[in-house]
Amino acid sequence: MADKINGIDLRILKLLSKNARLTYKELAELLGTTRQRISRRMNRLEQSGIILKYTVIPNYDALGYIHVILGVTIKPEVDIDEIVEKLKKNEHIKIIQRALGSHNLVLHIIGPKDMKELEKIIASVTKEIPGIDHLDITFITETVKFEAL
Amino acid sequence: MADKINGIDLRILKLLSKNARLTYKELAELLGTTRQRISRRMNRLEQSGIILKYTVIPNYDALGYIHVILGVTIKPEVDIDEIVEKLKKNEHIKIIQRALGSHNLVLHIIGPKDMKELEKIIASVTKEIPGIDHLDITFITETVKFEAL
Repeated sequence: MADKINGIDLRILKLLSKNARLTYKELAELLGTTRQRISRRMNRLEQSGIILKYTVIPNYDALGYIHVILGVTIKPEVDIDEIVEKLKKNEHIKIIQRALGSHNLVLHIIGPKDMKELEKIIASVTKEIPGIDHLDITFITETVKFEAL
Repeated sequence: MADKINGIDLRILKLLSKNARLTYKELAELLGTTRQRISRRMNRLEQSGIILKYTVIPNYDALGYIHVILGVTIKPEVDIDEIVEKLKKNEHIKIIQRALGSHNLVLHIIGPKDMKELEKIIASVTKEIPGIDHLDITFITETVKFEAL
């Protein structure tokens, strides 16, 4: 797909990363082109999977939640595919990313502020992951900057 | 603000987390209410900072980029406010989160796939952070699941 991405696609993506609710009309005006062209390019970006999702970034703290990141390092012999399939069904885990480096799996949990409840949720998640070599638990206190692109 | 959030707000947020491009009309139909009410609630959610941003989640790999997470643990005596102010201006750092636990700062870099270039960028970022006690570098290879709420 990468070779089919052009300059207008990147400019559309940058604008949507700042505000995903911009209409075709607004995007067309900002980029000096037509709504039809914007609509066509966006459909392609969506269908090719270059746009995974349009979403909202909430202030979890204000909503009464806590945002926890689990950085999981898994022993080399363990099958990560199998773990990922199991974890996908866990409603407490909102984001699952496969990775290389310090961690092999990055899991985001949006949980209650009650620490006892949260402990239970984290324990129920880690119980589903065999062969954990190391686990980093990070509690996000504030999102200071957020740009997708 | 948390006490002013009601059931309709949460339902709007859940729908927007699945698709931030839903129109007022579509949201109103899905929730059995009026466009006016949806528009009023969303304005409040935006103005109160409960909605930080509407954004797009791209497939960085397909765009030719690599997504790197730096989990930074900082020595207790260091002033994080000062570091954050400096890092905000760094265009390579797309996401900055303050945190407690394994890491005090979580930084997301969207960089080139060229490892030599990427090394330079990571070095330029870490050079701006005094008093690093420990640094975890994680390269995201695939986003398997992404739900904001």
